[in-house]
Amino acid sequence: MQLGKGVEWTTHICTILALLREGQGLSVDALAEFFEVPSAYLSKQMQLLRRAGIVQSVRGKGGGYRLARSVDDITLLDIVAAIEGPMPAFRCTEIRQNGPCGLKLKDCNGPCEIASAFADAEKVYRDALATRTLATIMQEAAMNSTPEHMVQIANWVSERLKT
Amino acid sequence: MQLGKGVEWTTHICTILALLREGQGLSVDALAEFFEVPSAYLSKQMQLLRRAGIVQSVRGKGGGYRLARSVDDITLLDIVAAIEGPMPAFRCTEIRQNGPCGLKLKDCNGPCEIASAFADAEKVYRDALATRTLATIMQEAAMNSTPEHMVQIANWVSERLKT
Repeated sequence: MQLGKGVEWTTHICTILALLREGQGLSVDALAEFFEVPSAYLSKQMQLLRRAGIVQSVRGKGGGYRLARSVDDITLLDIVAAIEGPMPAFRCTEIRQNGPCGLKLKDCNGPCEIASAFADAEKVYRDALATRTLATIMQEAAMNSTPEHMVQIANWVSERLKT
Repeated sequence: MQLGKGVEWTTHICTILALLREGQGLSVDALAEFFEVPSAYLSKQMQLLRRAGIVQSVRGKGGGYRLARSVDDITLLDIVAAIEGPMPAFRCTEIRQNGPCGLKLKDCNGPCEIASAFADAEKVYRDALATRTLATIMQEAAMNSTPEHMVQIANWVSERLKT
């Protein structure tokens, strides 16, 4: 079971897009440069975020992407769902209905207990991710870093917006 | 993010192996027949369960696999860890240290906040799976089924042990 790299990349990228002011955007090339990740692959991940309404396109000079919602209104679950899609990690194929002793559908008194147990576990996982907003992640990022580093990032963003 | 089919298959198979008495075992072919799953692929999954100490080999006539531990001592987490391995779903590549504003290692005041948030969510997921033993799954399976179906399974196992 593995989350795609795009989840790590785009979560970090959202923390950078959160620094932009109204109307500003950063290009995929700039974001790829910032994190040293491949621009072509990142471009596809950013399109997934856009389709999910997490980022929006900005046109013209300095165009690119910006957040489409407030940092209080974007959770890690939103990002995972955008990148990985809505399918559960455990995909029940109803094998209890297979074979010489297959349980007939009319005799199934409820959903498969194994599928239900995995669904319960995935629910607490998703609930945990849904409590982590981009706002809390950014507060923690600031605590994990230094003031000088925050200034360095702000300066880089300013410079990139001029080009 | 997706769990391999082997997780579904082997969890169901463990509920069948739980019906065996001391010294009895069911072959991979029998188990594959029971659930109509491919024998060759199932064989690899059963070896993963064996390496994890969830099942053990039984030699001789009627040989095959049986549970290596009590149904109270096998959880869904044990099965997932056996089949999927110990790696977390979110794999941090420390991209915060990349690029023109990369955070220097000496300035990292803690683990990456994004990796930590995903690790927290995975912990509650694993904890939820760790509370579901094979014993509870089997009780729920009995409730989801019919007495006639339980007898049918018991008869199938008896017949298969004779061949």
